[in-house]
Amino acid sequence: MGSSNEPPLLLKALAALAPELPDGVEIVPIGAPQYEEAAHPLRYVKAAQSIEMDEHPLLALRRKKDASICVGMRLLKEGAIDAFVSAGNTGALVSSAKMILSTLPGILRPALLALMPTKKNPLAVLDVGANVQGKATHLVQFALIGAAYSKARGIPKPSIGILNIGSEALKGTSELRLAYRELKHFKNAPFEFAGNIEGTSVFDGNVDVLVTDGFTGNIFLKTAEGIASLILDRVNAHIPREELEKLRPQVNDLQRHLHYAEYPGALLAGVKGIVIKCHGYSTPQAFVNGVKEAVRLASENFIQILQNKLDQFHIRRLKSE
Amino acid sequence: MGSSNEPPLLLKALAALAPELPDGVEIVPIGAPQYEEAAHPLRYVKAAQSIEMDEHPLLALRRKKDASICVGMRLLKEGAIDAFVSAGNTGALVSSAKMILSTLPGILRPALLALMPTKKNPLAVLDVGANVQGKATHLVQFALIGAAYSKARGIPKPSIGILNIGSEALKGTSELRLAYRELKHFKNAPFEFAGNIEGTSVFDGNVDVLVTDGFTGNIFLKTAEGIASLILDRVNAHIPREELEKLRPQVNDLQRHLHYAEYPGALLAGVKGIVIKCHGYSTPQAFVNGVKEAVRLASENFIQILQNKLDQFHIRRLKSE
Repeated sequence: MGSSNEPPLLLKALAALAPELPDGVEIVPIGAPQYEEAAHPLRYVKAAQSIEMDEHPLLALRRKKDASICVGMRLLKEGAIDAFVSAGNTGALVSSAKMILSTLPGILRPALLALMPTKKNPLAVLDVGANVQGKATHLVQFALIGAAYSKARGIPKPSIGILNIGSEALKGTSELRLAYRELKHFKNAPFEFAGNIEGTSVFDGNVDVLVTDGFTGNIFLKTAEGIASLILDRVNAHIPREELEKLRPQVNDLQRHLHYAEYPGALLAGVKGIVIKCHGYSTPQAFVNGVKEAVRLASENFIQILQNKLDQFHIRRLKSE
Repeated sequence: MGSSNEPPLLLKALAALAPELPDGVEIVPIGAPQYEEAAHPLRYVKAAQSIEMDEHPLLALRRKKDASICVGMRLLKEGAIDAFVSAGNTGALVSSAKMILSTLPGILRPALLALMPTKKNPLAVLDVGANVQGKATHLVQFALIGAAYSKARGIPKPSIGILNIGSEALKGTSELRLAYRELKHFKNAPFEFAGNIEGTSVFDGNVDVLVTDGFTGNIFLKTAEGIASLILDRVNAHIPREELEKLRPQVNDLQRHLHYAEYPGALLAGVKGIVIKCHGYSTPQAFVNGVKEAVRLASENFIQILQNKLDQFHIRRLKSE
C-alpha cells in the first residue's frame, strides 16, 4: 500500500517472482482486504488500515494501529517474517520501526542506506532520508553503521567520507564540523576516515561510505537521479536513431544502473530487523529487486552480523580508552 | 589569485579575449605584483596580498586589507570598474561584497545564483553557496531576487519552486516549511509559486527559479556535476571508438553544457554591484566565460534593472496591504 502503482500490479510481479526464490522462502504480501484475490497464489495478510503518502507520520501511527506498515513491523518483531519491504510513507515506516523493533545497541537513530554507482565500486550513502536533520552524534553513528555494513559485505577496512561543500575541515554546518572532528580522532577506528567529500568527486568512487544527514542525503540521491534522466535524454537525442539501435543494450544497461529506483531500495539500517524502503514511485521491477535484496540479507543473517560488528567496534573502542 | 590554475594561464586567456570584446570594454586583472609582466598588454592592478582558499574568510579579511578580493571590491564600489570576476575564496568574496558594496534595499543577504541546464529552459538556482545556512526570511528574499533576475531576462511572470525532499507543504526543515507558507501567501506576488520541487523533477524544467539554502544548493550543484561526469564516462566507454568519433561534436557540446564550470560562473546576486564567482578549479575557458557574462550584465545596466524590479515588488506589496 502507498506505492504509486496499483496494488494488483505489484502483487502480480511478486507472484511471478515467488517460484524463482530459493526453496523455503515465502513472500507474504500485507495490505487492504480487497486485494486478497489479486495476491493469489501467495498467502496474504489483511491489514484493516493503510497510511497515505501525505499523512503526518506520527499522527497516522497513533490513529492507525492496524495500518499495513504497523502490521508488517509487528510480524517482523515477532519473527513471523524475516524481512519487511515497503514502498509506503517513509516517516511512518521509520517511526514504526523505531517504536516496534527499536534500534541496535549504541544507535540512537536508524538511517536509510542506499547503494549508488560510482566510477569504481558501489558507494553506501546514509542517511538518504530517515531523519530530516542530524546532530554530530547521529552522523558519527551513521559512519559506524556504514562501516559495519561494508565489513559485512567483505570490505576489511572501509573508507568513510562526509558529504560536504568543500574538503577543508572547517567547511559546512557546525554539526558537520563536529562530526568531522570526532571521526578524525576516533580511537581505534574500524574505518579509514577520508574527510569531507564534495558532490563533484563522490562518483569517482574513492570511498566506500558517504555520511550525510537525511535531508542532504535525500537531495543528493534525487538530484543524481534527476540529472541522470536529463543526460540520458540528451544522449538519446544526439545519437542518430540507427546508431542508437545498435547501442540499445548498452544504453538500457546504463539507464537501469543509473536510475536508482532500479536499485534494491534503501535499507533502514540501525534497527533490529531487515526493513527495506522502496520509493513510492518504484516500478514493480524495482519493488521485486527490493524483495530479492531482503531475501539475500535475511539468508545471510545480516542483522546478527551487523550487530556483532557494531559490538566489536564498541569493545575495541573501550579497550583503547 | 586563488584559482587552481597558475595566474599566467588565466592572464594569457584574458589577453586573448580582450580584442574580441566590444569597443570601450577593458579587462583589468588584479593580483600579486609578480604577475604584472604576464598580463601584458592588459593594464594590471597590483594587490599586495591574496587570500588562500583554505583561510578563514572573516579572519583573512581583517588581516589582509590589500588582498586582491578587497582591492577589486573597492574599485567596484568606487566605480573604477563596472564588474568584478573572481575564482577566489567564496566566503571572503561574499563577506567583502557585503561589507564594501552592501546589499540592495530589502535584501539581508546576497545569494550565489547559478544557471543550470534542464530539459526545457535554463533554471536559475539560488543560493548555491554564499551562505551555509538560511532562515525562511532569507529564502523568501532569494525568491524575490530570482524573480527580479528572471524578469530582467524577459520572463514576465517567473515560476518559483523550493528545492525539497518531497512536494508536500510539510516536507523538509522548519525554515523550508515557513518559507513555503510565506511564498504561498505572498501578497500580489510577482511570481507563480510552484511549491516544493524534488531533485528528480528539477531538471524537467518546469520552473524558472529554484530556491534553496547555500549548503543544500551547493551540494545540489556539485552532485549534478559529479554525476554528469560519471555518466558521460560510461557513455564514452559504451560507444565504440569509431562511432564515438562521428559523434564527437555532439558529445563535446553535451559535456560542455553539463559541466557547470563551463557555465558563466555564479552571480553574487543581491549586492550593489556585478560580482561573478567562478570555481577555484575553473578552466581558463570557464573563467573567460565568467568575464563575458560580466561584460553582458554591465552593458545592460543589470544592477539598476534588478534594483528597479525589487523596488516595484516592494511597492506592489505595500499597495496590496
